[in-house]
Amino acid sequence: MNILLTNDDGIMAPGIAAAYKELVKIGNITVVAPSDRMSGAGHSITVFEPLVCEKVTIEGSFTGYSVSGSPADCVKLALMEICPTKPDIVVSGINHGANVGINVYYSGTVAAAMEAAFYRIPAIALSAAHEENTDFKNAAIYSLQVIEKLLPVTLPGVININIPALSKAKPKGLKVVPQSTMGFDEHYIKTQNDAGQTLYQLAGGTHRDVDLPSDTLALSDGFITVTSLGFDMTDYKGMEKLHQLKF
Amino acid sequence: MNILLTNDDGIMAPGIAAAYKELVKIGNITVVAPSDRMSGAGHSITVFEPLVCEKVTIEGSFTGYSVSGSPADCVKLALMEICPTKPDIVVSGINHGANVGINVYYSGTVAAAMEAAFYRIPAIALSAAHEENTDFKNAAIYSLQVIEKLLPVTLPGVININIPALSKAKPKGLKVVPQSTMGFDEHYIKTQNDAGQTLYQLAGGTHRDVDLPSDTLALSDGFITVTSLGFDMTDYKGMEKLHQLKF
Repeated sequence: MNILLTNDDGIMAPGIAAAYKELVKIGNITVVAPSDRMSGAGHSITVFEPLVCEKVTIEGSFTGYSVSGSPADCVKLALMEICPTKPDIVVSGINHGANVGINVYYSGTVAAAMEAAFYRIPAIALSAAHEENTDFKNAAIYSLQVIEKLLPVTLPGVININIPALSKAKPKGLKVVPQSTMGFDEHYIKTQNDAGQTLYQLAGGTHRDVDLPSDTLALSDGFITVTSLGFDMTDYKGMEKLHQLKF
Repeated sequence: MNILLTNDDGIMAPGIAAAYKELVKIGNITVVAPSDRMSGAGHSITVFEPLVCEKVTIEGSFTGYSVSGSPADCVKLALMEICPTKPDIVVSGINHGANVGINVYYSGTVAAAMEAAFYRIPAIALSAAHEENTDFKNAAIYSLQVIEKLLPVTLPGVININIPALSKAKPKGLKVVPQSTMGFDEHYIKTQNDAGQTLYQLAGGTHRDVDLPSDTLALSDGFITVTSLGFDMTDYKGMEKLHQLKF
């Protein structure tokens, strides 16, 4: 099996090295990842400038390609220029921090997987809950266990896998749960710089949630979460309302 | 009515000035837009650095706030810090270039509207087909006609409005159509810089489409398109497959 591996924390991040170490047991891996940390990149792509691509070796881990762009850029470039053959699967991660709820929109990790899905290639996004010392090694081991169960199935779109915090306890189990659509509680910290300009630093970002079963809730309860994400944003209930209007 | 107006082409772009000129007829507008051109920004947000926010006057048009970030950053900051009261509606655009099909994922214009939807504020994304001299003035007039028809309705999520090329003909009419999920035909142009690094410039980007009714098809046929977009990415058919697995 040919695997394309990417991430959004950058090619030097510990999460992608941990993912590589496990995934190499089940396939041939091509690594194409951002040269820099791209957290919050969402589904941004580089349109006005060329991408710089360099072959790099990460000591004690892998040789891959670093790209001066976003996670989605990496997948586009890998599929069109770098991968020797079309990958059977694209894996993105392991991200340092969960990607559940509306975070899937801000997430470069999910966007990279979604980009592969645009090309009709099965794609998996891997994220581990943010801790001071996130245990990427065990997060990768749990991730591989889930991926091996998924592989016999024809996967539609993106499978979004999140591993709960592992420093204090093992996962309580695994839940297949929908994406939460609740927002965040967040705010800005306002300061001024020496030039007298007003600066705002984003802070907070706690997920609001309700009692409905969701990825956000299940993850915070200590479960591994697995969610199927698609890329038809059409809101069909909304469409019904629009069809009733006289334009 | 209080309107928050933003875009992704930057606060100096002609599209936002054209939108302002029409929208001011129906409400009080606060403009908060990126200081720079942010095409392809997707739903990226700025997490590691503070945003610089400055009050600016665009000669002959409006006084607003420029923000050193993405379109989604602008909406977050506007809602939490800048708008005097919660806006009744958020409008993003008019973008220079259509945002149909999977382009809605790459689009900062749509992302800004989606960010407002996360806050449960009705949101509208406006885009005009890319031409050498896109007719933003008439695109804005058509946009306002559509918005006025939409306003009595409780809008869910984002209403994505695209105006076809106007230089050669008027729109053939208006179609309420779902988002196309087909991909692009695109490629990279490979070069080298003086330092011997390999560079790749993204090129192409023609929408693939089939005969199914969609935003992509209707727009290229010369119709104004209106699409309801939601923010639950969960693929419920995919979820059924996942529920059948034994994890």
